[in-house]
Amino acid sequence: MKFIHRLQQAWTAQRSLLCVGLDPDPARLPRHLAAATHPIFEFGRAIVDATADLVCAFKPQIAYYAAARAEDQLEMTIAHIRQRHPSIPVILDAKRGDVGSTAEMYAREAFERYQADAVTVSPYLGLDSLQPFLDHADRGVIVLCRTSNPGARDVQDMESGGKKLYQLIAEKAARDWNANANVLLVVGATYPQELREIRAIVGDMPILVPGVGAQGGDVAAVLANGATADGTGLIISSSRAVLYAGGGSDYAGAARAAALKLRDEINHCRGLS
Amino acid sequence: MKFIHRLQQAWTAQRSLLCVGLDPDPARLPRHLAAATHPIFEFGRAIVDATADLVCAFKPQIAYYAAARAEDQLEMTIAHIRQRHPSIPVILDAKRGDVGSTAEMYAREAFERYQADAVTVSPYLGLDSLQPFLDHADRGVIVLCRTSNPGARDVQDMESGGKKLYQLIAEKAARDWNANANVLLVVGATYPQELREIRAIVGDMPILVPGVGAQGGDVAAVLANGATADGTGLIISSSRAVLYAGGGSDYAGAARAAALKLRDEINHCRGLS
Repeated sequence: MKFIHRLQQAWTAQRSLLCVGLDPDPARLPRHLAAATHPIFEFGRAIVDATADLVCAFKPQIAYYAAARAEDQLEMTIAHIRQRHPSIPVILDAKRGDVGSTAEMYAREAFERYQADAVTVSPYLGLDSLQPFLDHADRGVIVLCRTSNPGARDVQDMESGGKKLYQLIAEKAARDWNANANVLLVVGATYPQELREIRAIVGDMPILVPGVGAQGGDVAAVLANGATADGTGLIISSSRAVLYAGGGSDYAGAARAAALKLRDEINHCRGLS
Repeated sequence: MKFIHRLQQAWTAQRSLLCVGLDPDPARLPRHLAAATHPIFEFGRAIVDATADLVCAFKPQIAYYAAARAEDQLEMTIAHIRQRHPSIPVILDAKRGDVGSTAEMYAREAFERYQADAVTVSPYLGLDSLQPFLDHADRGVIVLCRTSNPGARDVQDMESGGKKLYQLIAEKAARDWNANANVLLVVGATYPQELREIRAIVGDMPILVPGVGAQGGDVAAVLANGATADGTGLIISSSRAVLYAGGGSDYAGAARAAALKLRDEINHCRGLS
C-alpha cells in the first residue's frame, strides 16, 4: 500500500494527527534504564507501547541513535513497531541529501535496512538527489520546506521574483517531484503564516509539522493554517514534550498522559471532541 | 591543531591536492574480498595504504557504510588512517543538516564517534543548524555550496537581487559563519565557472571539489578557476575513478596508478612538475 494511503488510514482509524518523535537523548533517559542491555531500545519500546493507540505515526530521529552508536537499537525499535503496531507508519527522520549515486545508498539505508515507510530529505541538491527516494513509489519522501528552527530564515526566506525559497520548494514538490504521489513536506509549527501559504500551494499534500511542545509551536494555529478541508492533512509531531514528560520510573505513563492531552487538543482544534 | 592548518600541512608535505573518496559499493568490491570478515574495511584499508603518500585527505562517504549496516567498518577504516597515516586528515562525507538539538547529535556522530577531522553539512536550515559543528573550532565544517550533480541547478541557482543562492551561501560562509575560521565549502568540479565566482567571494577559504573522474569534471578547469594564488586552496576529490580503476586482485595497485596519474595531472596544472 502506498505510504499516503497508510497514513490516511491511520488518521481515520486512530482518530489522531499526532506523531510521537523518538529522540532518545542518552543524557535524559530514566536512570533505572542505565543497567539495561539496550537502554535506548527499552525506552523507545515503552514510549511506543504507551502511546500507540494515540498516534498516526512514529518518527525516530536517527541522529540520536547514531551519536550513541546504537543503530542496532534503532532497527529493534522499528521492528518492534512493525510487529506490535503494524498499522502505524514509521517515518525515519534523517534529512538525507546527496548526489544520485550516494542518494541511492541513503534510500537503501532508510527503506531497506530500516524498513521505514517514509524518510525526511533535504531539497538543496535538487531533483536528481531525490529521485532514488521517489522511485520507491510505495514509500513517502518528506522534503524539508520550512523548518521549525529560528535559522530557517537564513536560507529558506531568500526571495526571488516575489517568491521565497520555501514557496518555490513547495511548488516544485507539488508540480515537478510528485509523479509517484509520494511527496510530503516538512513545515515547522513555529511558522503558522508560512504553513498557510504552503498549504495554499500544495493542495491536500500531507505536511509533517514538527515544533509543537518544546519548540513552542501553537496547536490551534497549526490546525487553522495547515489542515485540509476534511480536518486532516497534517502529521503533528512532538518529541521532547512527550518523551520527557516524566523523568522517573513511570516515564511511559507520563508520556502517555502528555500524548493524550496533545491528541485531544489537536482533535478539539479540528472540531472533534 | 585546527583542521585548516592540518590540511595546509598535508598540502605541503604530501605535495598533493588530491583527496581519495571512500565510497565502497558492495556490488563493486573485488570478488575475492567477499569471504573476508570485514570486506568493506579490507577494501578501504588496501586503498588507503596504496594511496596514502599521494593524497592530502581521505573522504569516507558514510552512506555506503550505512546502507551496508557497516558503521563498525567505517570506524575501523578511520581508526586505521589515524594509526597508520596520522598526518592525513579524514573528512567524513555525511551532508548532515538538522535543527539545533539534533544537529548537536550529528556533530557528536562525526567528531566524537567517528573522530573525523572535518564533516560535510547542508546549509538549508541556516546558521543555528551549523552552530553545533562550528563550535568544534579545531574541526572543519564543509558546507555544501554548489554541488556536482546536474540537479544542483534546481535550487542552488535560484536568483535574488542579482545573486544566486550558491553565491549567497558563499557570502554567508565567509562573512557570517566563519568566526572560528573552520568553514570550507563544497563546489563541484563540473561547474568551473561557478567555482571561479565562489573563489572570488571567499578569498583563500579551502574548497572541497568532488566530481573529477566518474562525474566528468575537468582538472585543468578546476585549477584555473579554483586555486588560490599559491597554487593550493583545493581538496580535489575522486572516488569511483580511483576505487574501481581495477576490479581484480590488484585493485589496490590499479587504484594507486589512477591516484598517481590524477595527482600528477593536478600538480602539472598548478605548475609543479
